[in-house]
Amino acid sequence: MRVLAIVEYDGTAFEGFQVQARKRTVQAELERALARVTGETIRIVGAGRTDTGVHALGQGVHFDTTWPHPLAVLQRAWNAVLPSDIAIRALFPVPDDFSARYDAQSRTYRYTILNQPLRSPLAARYVLWVPEPLDVAAMDTAARQLIGSHDFGAFGTPPRGTNTVREIYRAQVWREGARVHIELEANAFLYRMVRRIVGTLLLVGKGVLDQTQFALVLARQRRAAFAVPPHGLCLIAVKYGVMHENV
Amino acid sequence: MRVLAIVEYDGTAFEGFQVQARKRTVQAELERALARVTGETIRIVGAGRTDTGVHALGQGVHFDTTWPHPLAVLQRAWNAVLPSDIAIRALFPVPDDFSARYDAQSRTYRYTILNQPLRSPLAARYVLWVPEPLDVAAMDTAARQLIGSHDFGAFGTPPRGTNTVREIYRAQVWREGARVHIELEANAFLYRMVRRIVGTLLLVGKGVLDQTQFALVLARQRRAAFAVPPHGLCLIAVKYGVMHENV
Repeated sequence: MRVLAIVEYDGTAFEGFQVQARKRTVQAELERALARVTGETIRIVGAGRTDTGVHALGQGVHFDTTWPHPLAVLQRAWNAVLPSDIAIRALFPVPDDFSARYDAQSRTYRYTILNQPLRSPLAARYVLWVPEPLDVAAMDTAARQLIGSHDFGAFGTPPRGTNTVREIYRAQVWREGARVHIELEANAFLYRMVRRIVGTLLLVGKGVLDQTQFALVLARQRRAAFAVPPHGLCLIAVKYGVMHENV
Repeated sequence: MRVLAIVEYDGTAFEGFQVQARKRTVQAELERALARVTGETIRIVGAGRTDTGVHALGQGVHFDTTWPHPLAVLQRAWNAVLPSDIAIRALFPVPDDFSARYDAQSRTYRYTILNQPLRSPLAARYVLWVPEPLDVAAMDTAARQLIGSHDFGAFGTPPRGTNTVREIYRAQVWREGARVHIELEANAFLYRMVRRIVGTLLLVGKGVLDQTQFALVLARQRRAAFAVPPHGLCLIAVKYGVMHENV
């Protein structure tokens, strides 16, 4: 039986999602806990290989198991042995040829900025502190330039010759009190693409780039900003056709 | 010159507020950073000696310094050398006989519970997870029994012979989505009093104690619950007559 799991994690203490020798990764912790519960050696495939320090509220992963009991029992047992910084939010039975990676219809990432003069210890783990005033309306206008199918090579660092065209379905920037949220939904993202887009949108927010200059970055006529730090980033959701519940 | 500072901290990595030999405490970090900035050896006095793991959004502390520049400059310099889990939110000049501890008009603590079937890694640092349904209206009714001057010895563990009468000005329990907040404002609190009150209110919320039985606990005719863990607790504010700004 193939199973889709929706996973939440605090990325702070992980060296990213994907298994690496002698490193604490999300995939390794998921596989170890699942082995303890099922007695099987199970390989897990994730929708997005989040970087070191990046959080997730709705990462999607799939795996195969011979688990004979209801999935609700598996979820409870798995959560009971997982460390406190990972939890399984939901499990769904899926077809045997389903892939959490290739059948994902979209991925949604949110980056959160704390935009106030003082830094905040109680928020520091999940936001980037930017004390300078930000023109959020200008950032939102620039973000909307990204919507549609574009070559996003300007914001990615792909291997030579690979396809850098992605489709962004939704791109918006809004203020909520002292927080500024940047949310992007796309069919897929290039490596570090979200964090380099956020860095470049911050230049718009600070008045360093105007809308035309931001368009020139997208057109690879100007250099994009460096990636912002990972701790403000969260993989909010991965959408699948097989999910009928809102998770 | 005597100065009042309003301090925010994430209590996770501290062994409480008060200086102890060879332990990482909030007071020790504040004093070390202030010494680096001013070149003086400065003793800091706090309003509340928060326990290991308890957070603060508005702890009050005072100290004496010969700092000759504006307080805004001291605040910036102090924040620049403090670790990321402590920040100075505001500084106020106060009279030479002012005490952050004895001149506090009230202390407000908030305890936050995540009341949903699943635990949440992204909230785990700042909430207590309680999966069972809670009757928040009953908890709020019981909490209101605490308002006024009472002998709170039932909830405290004071040294023999000390006065255990405190005055609670405000006690309320409310739900905000999956979170349940318990907020108490008093002239002062006994050691572990807030966490034992919260533990006992949770018994009301689960239907283990009714309103009469909760009243019997307050009257020391029944035993109070054990203290809930510290990580859900935050010292929200300390009020002083000298503060004219809303901090």
